[in-house]
Amino acid sequence: MGKILLDMAMSLDGFIAGPNDEPAGLHDWFFPPSGSVTAGDAEIIDESIRTTGAIVMGRRSYDLGDKVDGFVHTPYRVEHFVLSHDVPEQVARGETTFTFVTDGIESVLREAKAAAGDKNVAVGGGASIAQQCIRAGLLDEIQIHLVPVLLGEGIRLFEHPGAERIKLERTRVIESPFATHLRFRVVKEN
Amino acid sequence: MGKILLDMAMSLDGFIAGPNDEPAGLHDWFFPPSGSVTAGDAEIIDESIRTTGAIVMGRRSYDLGDKVDGFVHTPYRVEHFVLSHDVPEQVARGETTFTFVTDGIESVLREAKAAAGDKNVAVGGGASIAQQCIRAGLLDEIQIHLVPVLLGEGIRLFEHPGAERIKLERTRVIESPFATHLRFRVVKEN
Repeated sequence: MGKILLDMAMSLDGFIAGPNDEPAGLHDWFFPPSGSVTAGDAEIIDESIRTTGAIVMGRRSYDLGDKVDGFVHTPYRVEHFVLSHDVPEQVARGETTFTFVTDGIESVLREAKAAAGDKNVAVGGGASIAQQCIRAGLLDEIQIHLVPVLLGEGIRLFEHPGAERIKLERTRVIESPFATHLRFRVVKEN
Repeated sequence: MGKILLDMAMSLDGFIAGPNDEPAGLHDWFFPPSGSVTAGDAEIIDESIRTTGAIVMGRRSYDLGDKVDGFVHTPYRVEHFVLSHDVPEQVARGETTFTFVTDGIESVLREAKAAAGDKNVAVGGGASIAQQCIRAGLLDEIQIHLVPVLLGEGIRLFEHPGAERIKLERTRVIESPFATHLRFRVVKEN
């Protein structure tokens, strides 16, 4: 059975984008300016592509990705589920399929899980959908690509996660100059 | 020459204490409930005690530590410099000496640096003094003891760090079940 994994890049001071949604170098480990992915980063990227069966994202992230490159550069050839209030007219781009789900976080995760089969559902942003997943107790794992920079301002990942304390177990650390890839299991207490 | 090091424990969601200044388990790697420090944590603690020549803290952190145990359990037998608006009546406790400095962040760091000699000045909290150090460009290194928990609320370390982007280089990772000890060098760009 696949897991539901929150998978995001974050600066040391907690931002997933700069002001005005600037990428701010947070994805350089994935798309290095030099074109050469380091060994540590390649291990993470290969594993992610191999084990991800569906991607869930918020509407804002979809609109941003659509604007940047219409998703033609994504290496994930799996169904993308977009949690959205409405369904935009023009949807599919490149080789990636998009399904718009309008009835809430539990519904979009259920559909993505069915599509992913034995593989994982990766929740890839933005902050709002991540916070909804955390608050609803729907995550099995969290992977944070911690980028060695203090952005000072921008969009914060853990802005309103709610008052419930959630224990994690760190299950892996992989280092590269661009990021410290930290993986956690969510400890579910009954 | 010693370095100025910000040295703090932080939850994955960016908090250095829970609501009402609760420690919230963030210092369990240093003071484990079981009494047994793990090997990874011991390495960090031993190094810190060996290389720290002076400690700088804010007045709130002093008042909290004073209330908890009067600093009798701190293993740091070095001069503590407290940035404060006034000097409290009762100051020294245990074997630790406290010096109150009232004329600003640069002044307290200068005094601490003189006291530390070849050893490091450790800035140990709270959030306000950490933010002042970051904003003033006064840090050489940052050590974050990243604790695998989402607190959801509390006192945030990087709350108002300002708009300047600060590049870091991650120089070390040491793992324990209680924390991922991440050390960064602040990249000073001229």
